[in-house]
Amino acid sequence: MSQFDDETRLQISGEGVCAGPVHSSWNIGTNPNGGYLMALAVSALRTQMPRHPDPVSVTVHYLRPGLGDQTCQVSGQVLRSGATLSTGRASLVQQDKACLEVLAAFADLAANSNASSASGSNFSLPAPTVAAPAIPPPDQCILRSGDEQGVELTIMNRLDIRLHPGEVKSGAAGKAQVTGWIRFLDGRPPDSLALLLFADAFPPSIFGLLGLVGWVPTIELTVHVRRRPAPGWILGQFRTLDLADGRMIEDGALWDSTGQLVAQSRQLAMLRRQK
Amino acid sequence: MSQFDDETRLQISGEGVCAGPVHSSWNIGTNPNGGYLMALAVSALRTQMPRHPDPVSVTVHYLRPGLGDQTCQVSGQVLRSGATLSTGRASLVQQDKACLEVLAAFADLAANSNASSASGSNFSLPAPTVAAPAIPPPDQCILRSGDEQGVELTIMNRLDIRLHPGEVKSGAAGKAQVTGWIRFLDGRPPDSLALLLFADAFPPSIFGLLGLVGWVPTIELTVHVRRRPAPGWILGQFRTLDLADGRMIEDGALWDSTGQLVAQSRQLAMLRRQK
Repeated sequence: MSQFDDETRLQISGEGVCAGPVHSSWNIGTNPNGGYLMALAVSALRTQMPRHPDPVSVTVHYLRPGLGDQTCQVSGQVLRSGATLSTGRASLVQQDKACLEVLAAFADLAANSNASSASGSNFSLPAPTVAAPAIPPPDQCILRSGDEQGVELTIMNRLDIRLHPGEVKSGAAGKAQVTGWIRFLDGRPPDSLALLLFADAFPPSIFGLLGLVGWVPTIELTVHVRRRPAPGWILGQFRTLDLADGRMIEDGALWDSTGQLVAQSRQLAMLRRQK
Repeated sequence: MSQFDDETRLQISGEGVCAGPVHSSWNIGTNPNGGYLMALAVSALRTQMPRHPDPVSVTVHYLRPGLGDQTCQVSGQVLRSGATLSTGRASLVQQDKACLEVLAAFADLAANSNASSASGSNFSLPAPTVAAPAIPPPDQCILRSGDEQGVELTIMNRLDIRLHPGEVKSGAAGKAQVTGWIRFLDGRPPDSLALLLFADAFPPSIFGLLGLVGWVPTIELTVHVRRRPAPGWILGQFRTLDLADGRMIEDGALWDSTGQLVAQSRQLAMLRRQK
């Protein structure tokens, strides 16, 4: 049993409801990481999607910060159950207050690989995809600090994150981009659920342009899982595309150790300047 | 009163519930366009967000095709109401079946422009944004056909869409990209609600690479409205980023007549080959 599996597993406590602890081991400062909460809620919701284990499109709106080492309840509802896709929604509640609202579609990415000719994707042209960027290997990258802007990253006891040496110094990249490697510290291989966490575990890409600017709370995060990842390191690249009126769009992509695109992400976040 | 306003306005029929007709005038073939249905549902939901008229992050999952010239009910629920942001969900139902599930955050984009210094975005560096692509003016672009692959585009009686001459011929662009201009035929100026429609009104970008490949039903569409648009034409560019196992990711961006980025979109769609 891995730490991630152990700490994202809730118990079924009623019709469509799961309950259990939110672990503080994935905290950024005093609150659980948003990607961890997303994985926790999706893990609970997919207990209702027995044929479709892979989240292929997940949107979360963060209504309130989560609370580590407190119980949560995830209430899920199946909206549609089809042959190739199941869709559902869920809300994660702590202390009677909704923290996350989730809307997600699930599929079986392994099954769909075999059914590709039936689903009409066997075109003669090379299919479009997003190529992985060039980056030094993990042992030439810089371990993400467990302390950023005086904020303790407890999550760095769970994750091994190595950042591009040209981008790691705050504000030094001259562009709003962060590139690096990520894996679980306990050796658990990546899967579609882990990609939800990995899509929200790098430093905010705006740091590369502006330096340490303060808190960047996520309003909404959407992750598309494109393929099941191969074992090994996951490569991630994140860019701030647009910043206006204190709200920014950050785009991300994740590739597995074979160089295949495995997930894309986009989030709307607020930029709150450090006092 | 514009056609778009007239045909996206439902009547309040109960606590959090609006009802009224889905108009077939926005049809693609026999079903209403997905962007129109998104605008219809969001228009109903925002009646519950009096302080925040602009949808800034909208995700829709399309559960079943909509039905033109049939009644619909939109049931909305406020999930959080804050000072700068309100969040809600809604479902659009026709003939007792859920067609759309919506999760959305709303703000006041005009108010936030004035509050930019307070919200911490007044950095000295130019803020990142996405520049508009170069494209010939509308009168040198090609009117989108009202008949594509034998499918009647009734919506072309409502919208004026002009496509880049180098991309309009099916499969000719050699890349999965569509660029063009869009506006309402009746002269209604664009606003944040209209951008939801405009983000889903161009031909599927995969046509530029593969030719007319059949039906491309949207599973999920997320639109971020970044700024209120100036009057005039809206420029749109859409690209298929990744195609795997019959499912594709299409990214889009919209710019207003002053060249400002006004919306970004991403959708997960299925590619069903024409028989």
